Amino acid sequence: MKEKLQAQISQLKSGKLSEEDFYSLISELPYKKHGDIKLDFHRKIRRGLPEVIYGKSKNIDQLSVIINSFTESNEDILITKVSKDKYDDLKTSFNNLIFYERAEIITFDREPIKKFDGEILILSAGASDENIAEEAVVSAKYLGNTVKKEYDVGIACISRILDLKHTFDKSSVIIAIAGMEGAMPSVVAGLTSTPIIAVPTSVGYGTNFNGMAALLSMLNSCAGGISVVNIDNGFGAAFQATLINQKIQKQ
Amino acid sequence: MKEKLQAQISQLKSGKLSEEDFYSLISELPYKKHGDIKLDFHRKIRRGLPEVIYGKSKNIDQLSVIINSFTESNEDILITKVSKDKYDDLKTSFNNLIFYERAEIITFDREPIKKFDGEILILSAGASDENIAEEAVVSAKYLGNTVKKEYDVGIACISRILDLKHTFDKSSVIIAIAGMEGAMPSVVAGLTSTPIIAVPTSVGYGTNFNGMAALLSMLNSCAGGISVVNIDNGFGAAFQATLINQKIQKQ
Amino acid sequence: MKEKLQAQISQLKSGKLSEEDFYSLISELPYKKHGDIKLDFHRKIRRGLPEVIYGKSKNIDQLSVIINSFTESNEDILITKVSKDKYDDLKTSFNNLIFYERAEIITFDREPIKKFDGEILILSAGASDENIAEEAVVSAKYLGNTVKKEYDVGIACISRILDLKHTFDKSSVIIAIAGMEGAMPSVVAGLTSTPIIAVPTSVGYGTNFNGMAALLSMLNSCAGGISVVNIDNGFGAAFQATLINQKIQKQ
Amino acid sequence: MKEKLQAQISQLKSGKLSEEDFYSLISELPYKKHGDIKLDFHRKIRRGLPEVIYGKSKNIDQLSVIINSFTESNEDILITKVSKDKYDDLKTSFNNLIFYERAEIITFDREPIKKFDGEILILSAGASDENIAEEAVVSAKYLGNTVKKEYDVGIACISRILDLKHTFDKSSVIIAIAGMEGAMPSVVAGLTSTPIIAVPTSVGYGTNFNGMAALLSMLNSCAGGISVVNIDNGFGAAFQATLINQKIQKQ
Amino acid sequence: MKEKLQAQISQLKSGKLSEEDFYSLISELPYKKHGDIKLDFHRKIRRGLPEVIYGKSKNIDQLSVIINSFTESNEDILITKVSKDKYDDLKTSFNNLIFYERAEIITFDREPIKKFDGEILILSAGASDENIAEEAVVSAKYLGNTVKKEYDVGIACISRILDLKHTFDKSSVIIAIAGMEGAMPSVVAGLTSTPIIAVPTSVGYGTNFNGMAALLSMLNSCAGGISVVNIDNGFGAAFQATLINQKIQKQ
Amino acid sequence: MKEKLQAQISQLKSGKLSEEDFYSLISELPYKKHGDIKLDFHRKIRRGLPEVIYGKSKNIDQLSVIINSFTESNEDILITKVSKDKYDDLKTSFNNLIFYERAEIITFDREPIKKFDGEILILSAGASDENIAEEAVVSAKYLGNTVKKEYDVGIACISRILDLKHTFDKSSVIIAIAGMEGAMPSVVAGLTSTPIIAVPTSVGYGTNFNGMAALLSMLNSCAGGISVVNIDNGFGAAFQATLINQKIQKQ
Amino acid sequence: MKEKLQAQISQLKSGKLSEEDFYSLISELPYKKHGDIKLDFHRKIRRGLPEVIYGKSKNIDQLSVIINSFTESNEDILITKVSKDKYDDLKTSFNNLIFYERAEIITFDREPIKKFDGEILILSAGASDENIAEEAVVSAKYLGNTVKKEYDVGIACISRILDLKHTFDKSSVIIAIAGMEGAMPSVVAGLTSTPIIAVPTSVGYGTNFNGMAALLSMLNSCAGGISVVNIDNGFGAAFQATLINQKIQKQ
Amino acid sequence: MKEKLQAQISQLKSGKLSEEDFYSLISELPYKKHGDIKLDFHRKIRRGLPEVIYGKSKNIDQLSVIINSFTESNEDILITKVSKDKYDDLKTSFNNLIFYERAEIITFDREPIKKFDGEILILSAGASDENIAEEAVVSAKYLGNTVKKEYDVGIACISRILDLKHTFDKSSVIIAIAGMEGAMPSVVAGLTSTPIIAVPTSVGYGTNFNGMAALLSMLNSCAGGISVVNIDNGFGAAFQATLINQKIQKQ
Repeated sequence: MKEKLQAQISQLKSGKLSEEDFYSLISELPYKKHGDIKLDFHRKIRRGLPEVIYGKSKNIDQLSVIINSFTESNEDILITKVSKDKYDDLKTSFNNLIFYERAEIITFDREPIKKFDGEILILSAGASDENIAEEAVVSAKYLGNTVKKEYDVGIACISRILDLKHTFDKSSVIIAIAGMEGAMPSVVAGLTSTPIIAVPTSVGYGTNFNGMAALLSMLNSCAGGISVVNIDNGFGAAFQATLINQKIQKQ
Repeated sequence: MKEKLQAQISQLKSGKLSEEDFYSLISELPYKKHGDIKLDFHRKIRRGLPEVIYGKSKNIDQLSVIINSFTESNEDILITKVSKDKYDDLKTSFNNLIFYERAEIITFDREPIKKFDGEILILSAGASDENIAEEAVVSAKYLGNTVKKEYDVGIACISRILDLKHTFDKSSVIIAIAGMEGAMPSVVAGLTSTPIIAVPTSVGYGTNFNGMAALLSMLNSCAGGISVVNIDNGFGAAFQATLINQKIQKQ
Repeated sequence: MKEKLQAQISQLKSGKLSEEDFYSLISELPYKKHGDIKLDFHRKIRRGLPEVIYGKSKNIDQLSVIINSFTESNEDILITKVSKDKYDDLKTSFNNLIFYERAEIITFDREPIKKFDGEILILSAGASDENIAEEAVVSAKYLGNTVKKEYDVGIACISRILDLKHTFDKSSVIIAIAGMEGAMPSVVAGLTSTPIIAVPTSVGYGTNFNGMAALLSMLNSCAGGISVVNIDNGFGAAFQATLINQKIQKQ
Repeated sequence: MKEKLQAQISQLKSGKLSEEDFYSLISELPYKKHGDIKLDFHRKIRRGLPEVIYGKSKNIDQLSVIINSFTESNEDILITKVSKDKYDDLKTSFNNLIFYERAEIITFDREPIKKFDGEILILSAGASDENIAEEAVVSAKYLGNTVKKEYDVGIACISRILDLKHTFDKSSVIIAIAGMEGAMPSVVAGLTSTPIIAVPTSVGYGTNFNGMAALLSMLNSCAGGISVVNIDNGFGAAFQATLINQKIQKQ
Repeated sequence: MKEKLQAQISQLKSGKLSEEDFYSLISELPYKKHGDIKLDFHRKIRRGLPEVIYGKSKNIDQLSVIINSFTESNEDILITKVSKDKYDDLKTSFNNLIFYERAEIITFDREPIKKFDGEILILSAGASDENIAEEAVVSAKYLGNTVKKEYDVGIACISRILDLKHTFDKSSVIIAIAGMEGAMPSVVAGLTSTPIIAVPTSVGYGTNFNGMAALLSMLNSCAGGISVVNIDNGFGAAFQATLINQKIQKQ
Repeated sequence: MKEKLQAQISQLKSGKLSEEDFYSLISELPYKKHGDIKLDFHRKIRRGLPEVIYGKSKNIDQLSVIINSFTESNEDILITKVSKDKYDDLKTSFNNLIFYERAEIITFDREPIKKFDGEILILSAGASDENIAEEAVVSAKYLGNTVKKEYDVGIACISRILDLKHTFDKSSVIIAIAGMEGAMPSVVAGLTSTPIIAVPTSVGYGTNFNGMAALLSMLNSCAGGISVVNIDNGFGAAFQATLINQKIQKQ
Repeated sequence: MKEKLQAQISQLKSGKLSEEDFYSLISELPYKKHGDIKLDFHRKIRRGLPEVIYGKSKNIDQLSVIINSFTESNEDILITKVSKDKYDDLKTSFNNLIFYERAEIITFDREPIKKFDGEILILSAGASDENIAEEAVVSAKYLGNTVKKEYDVGIACISRILDLKHTFDKSSVIIAIAGMEGAMPSVVAGLTSTPIIAVPTSVGYGTNFNGMAALLSMLNSCAGGISVVNIDNGFGAAFQATLINQKIQKQ
Repeated sequence: MKEKLQAQISQLKSGKLSEEDFYSLISELPYKKHGDIKLDFHRKIRRGLPEVIYGKSKNIDQLSVIINSFTESNEDILITKVSKDKYDDLKTSFNNLIFYERAEIITFDREPIKKFDGEILILSAGASDENIAEEAVVSAKYLGNTVKKEYDVGIACISRILDLKHTFDKSSVIIAIAGMEGAMPSVVAGLTSTPIIAVPTSVGYGTNFNGMAALLSMLNSCAGGISVVNIDNGFGAAFQATLINQKIQKQ
């Protein structure tokens, strides 16, 4: 960008570019420049982090176009919330995809590259929360993190949580995933000073209201050190944890 | 009632009452008798348990009439959700009342009589939940129970809860009171097989929604052995615990 | 545990264990010990009560692993919220299961052993609530209780409720199950001093909001002696009633 | 109106009014005529029924203007939801008003005239619902009905309700007012075939949600013969009952 | 019942029954008698009105048992909310049923008998509300009413509503059915003094919240003379209108 | 109408119509006239704008009747929210229809006629919102507008929005369509003084609550110049924009 | 800005500014320029439209600072949602303010300047909605519009609405304000093709939910041509109407 | 603790402590030790971080006891959500307190000690959000962080946000505080890869629902890198940011 501008300045000075033309180029600059300094969220991720596509409401045609475009540009890709049905359709056209069935994630068939030293600990409270936990695990790994996972760490068996205190403390971030009453992150927060990203899941029935009970529980935690993402947003938690890991790495 | 009926039967047999008149008396009986066999909730409690009045939406005049009527009939009384202002008004007219300020309860100035051996354990999670806890404590004592209270037993300091495991086990019922995320009863339920009556409180702000967060947490508990009463219903929990204690006593 | 510790103390005194090593063993103690004293909820139930698995969000693979593990360890099991489809799948691999179709419960094919004298009365308000009632009935029996059931006891026909007054009184606990406006438990509570565990069901339409109308009705009951579990949580009510029965038995 | 039109027709025939002018007069007619045939709700009531003003959100100035205008035109008036403070202000200017304090209603100081034979029965479940019940009672009387009231008819004491069966049956309409769990109208509906207008009140706390619990209970009643008005809308129920009484009268 | 009692009285007088035994028989009476004097809602309807069964949550087996029982006892029946699938199943076993497909109602194949003179007017706002309107129409006719129906009377075309003013006035009750914003009943109420039973339908999308928008609109109507039943409860409105018609008839 | 009336006036003047008969004709006029002066919403649109039918809750039979009637009267038609299944059914009977699959709209196979000069800009935030955007695009074109569309203009890439500032300014109205957090219209409103019709979509999951998050975001926008239509109501926005364009055209 | 830039270009060409310095000036440009080209919402309004401040959550100190700053810069100002108490405080310091008490708006004491020909019609449904209507009226006038207001145009008296049809048609935009069931805008929309900005008010009680009933009614209107702003947002509607008027003016 | 234990071990070895006594000391250890290894949340903070007390629901007596106890033990303290009234009461007894009026925070009168290098950026969207922003600022400083604050960074003036891009990038964590539609954090997240803790505030009216609109907006953000705390929980965000800063510091 700088080179281009300096060339234009030279052209102006040398008379190759009229004052009027130069002015009009500069008037356009702010927006072009915005494009240039990459305010674009997707491109930012692309630099170092794989591209992320929300797959749920996209059909096979839309997904095929996207996958083709990424294949051509040799970029990494992470598609979340893809059903097995969609994958089965896609794999008839593409042979470079991996499908993580429980995580409902598609990536290219490449090894994730570790970028950050901090270890992200991913906890899930019940067997039923594991799909969302897998979404977080696969995402976090693909985004370059080291991941440790501990499943079935519910508060009904408090000793399992207590046993993990040391693991809590040495992690850089904890992703704590729970449905039903969603109380596990609060109990963990009472035991450690590692920051916790809590993910409510829609597991439950009746007054669970598809995850509302867990969400409210997490937002109202009396223990400090918990911030929350959307219900079932395993990827979102992994992304936030990655940004924290990135900050840790940079310092 | 029995005497009256038997007298009528005698009158029938002796001919003083015609078959037809007797039949018509008996046709009316069901409703009268209903009145007689005390389907009346309040009277049932009165037999052995003090009378309970919900004081919140009653004005001084209404409360005065009620207190007078109970004073005259020499019955015990328990008025819940009475503000200090109302009590200050009432005490100018009545000198036989005790006011439990934090519990917002008025009773007559009599010693509660212990009726049940089982000990009710009343737990409150935070200092802010103590008013509701006091409502439960005062109610439970007045209803004839032995009460043990443990306050400030929040999940942010899990060791305090663990320390109480033995106390949990030997209680007959636990009343577990918590606001905010309301997770304490779930943690306690994971540690004991004593039945828990959980009371969500309206303590909190924002997404607490005046106790909804705690209520939902309690209803969705993954640990068994919790049933729930209305938000801030300390008396209701004490009453339910009393009924359980009564069943235990009877066996 | 005690023996092990005393052995270590002896080793310390005899010099076989250095002061430093002994100290480090003791530092680890709390957590190990926690593991040891079985704070584990599931194990507690296992001791005397069958194990309970929430089947709804588990797939055939997960359920198979669990059933195998329980078969091997010769433990009892109770799996709730299992659809007929899942059972049909499972029975091709397991021949030791019973499926209670209306209750949507799987257990091993063993006779429940009666553990408690107190009789649990299970009431359901409408024909449509009977599946949840069956969940409670099967659970309560498997957990060792004597169960009496009375169905179709709705408030639209108040005389049926009145007729049961004697039954209410002699039960140790009542499980009262109702959808729609959920008023039946309140009417029953007005007639008896037996504690009631109320179960709202999701039966209804429109403003029923999948059970919210019944839940709110139960939580706001003007009659004392009702505590509530989650919508459609027949098992939860049975479990709570069992804990109460257990307390009664113990005294 | 008719006279005016006929005069214009005559003018047309006699040539005093051109065809064109006549046509344009008639083009305007529909709207004028609408004004004439009194589609106006307020005026309709005025014919035979007192005028009704919703007082809650009107200030003293607005209310004074309205009262003056009705005084001048010698019309009856009924102002609902007026606080005592507002009345105290108004009575310094007007000496022709009656204030029903519990009902929060102002009317002119005139005797209501009975218009309908059917007796409206007004039931309230608890002492706390009586203000709304009084709003219904005062309104119904002022609208020309005979009113019978029975207060404190809650479901916790079912025998009181049973005792009233005969009264239910002989009323023309029942207005059933209840807060908390709002179950009383359902129980009454199970006992009678008199139509019931149910009024949920905002009495209660916690999950009562200012009357939502009672409203939902009433809308989901399993017993037929209940229709519902807004929370705390005692007047609305009285008005609907009056319209039914009016239909009965007319036949 | 009366005969039995009178026989017992005779036995008492003749000495065949001791006073004590007679007394104990009578002590039991209230409950038995309750059964006898038909507090039973269903039976009450049966006397003159067909029996009503809520079909939605009942399976083929349950429905078959009910239909058989009614066929045998030669009673009328009305089953609401029955899907075409269920009917197709049922008709293989029963040849005495009529299915009203849009109304989703099954009745026996008998002509309804007119019982009431008052004409019920059934209005529906949009083409999409017609199924619920048909439920009301079929129900009202089967319950013995004369029914007039006017469909597609939405507020977007106000002139259609205005045209019906005369019809509104001469009806005994209006059932006004509307989805979306549910404003039609309010407009109608502004034009007539016939009582209106409003039925919100779940027709709409987005913020309609399955009928909540219409329900709230109806409950908050600024025009008097509207009371409301549950969302999509066409039968409920017909039943309430029938009770009103019955009162009109009786006077 | 005018002709008819003038004919009648002539008849009156000529004596062919008596004064009395003429008067009675005119008395009926208001309602007839209402019909005539087209208070009818549908007819109003028909004059110049195609007829609009909400297709979602209508079945094939209903739609066929409507299409036939419009075909016969040679009117334009626009049917919204029609699934592909329904179209596939319909096209077996009709060969004059176009189906816009993503928009879920059926029209007759005619070229839209441009009526307004103002250009409507239709923005959609994400790929998943495009179906609703297409509904708006197709509707707006069919209603006679020039439409410019810009998709995938989400706030995560702010530079794309900034680049469009000039386009915003020169449009007559902007339809801004967004799901998830629905913030795009607010950002656009901060950049332009063109009025914005915002359309929340139901795209999202968890706490999105089927579009509520986006709706609330739009209603609470701190930037002025946004008004909102129902969730997923692409047609509604196009219709409102058309009315604005019509006003602009007329001046 | 343009002049400044052109001067710098001249300086660059003439050598008064080095290439390096010029480049660095330009690098800063985008952000500065953003500031300059007035992406700023407030400044945009300022150009021709008075500045708008949301006064509700600002204290006297904050408001004083703002008023001073506008006084100094000789700009117009419009402060919304200011209570009388705050104004009484402010007027002790400022003598250049006007307070519109019902509108709760403060402006400088200057005559609004008419900028647009289109007349905005402001309708309010009930006397209780007039404060919000006044907020809209005062705002619309101050923003340069001609305003016509019609109050008390509720649907309970449909003839008043019908009478205004001509007024509806000739307005450029209609602001329709209604509380309670909020149905008036729908009725108006059925009568005219003028675009309507609907404002729900929080007037009502019970299930009105502070304006939710009216809001939902407006969003679900079956009549096209309505878009909605936040509850009680009279200013917002006026602002949107102004933008539409501005577009009309420009064409 | 370690010293004490090692001393006891020495005593054991030396015979000063009997095996039996030593064993009993150790039996008590687990719970004591829990106390010691600081599962206690408050104590954990105390180590390096000031103690935090939620002041809102505590009365003067409770606060005085707490302040005294901290004064005596020479610990730091941070009391949140304290009204000015309470502070005015407290300062009559304590002269060692500072009150941050806008933040509603009390601390001891000591200089915060900087513990972390990472700079926390605290953004607030509107003037009305500043109180919560101040709560975050004061908390974050007292917890040992360097804080930079930028207020009035709303999306209505996007250029102000763009101008801060560099500041965003170099911060360690961003706390983004917004009421109304709460969209600012999403816009910021689109511009930076610094992790954002978003705080919805209850600023707004109508459909804002005391912060729900902002909360939902933040949870549904289409831009990654946002996690959320409770409405108005400025302290909670500061605490979470501190934990992240602590992790950064430690690496």
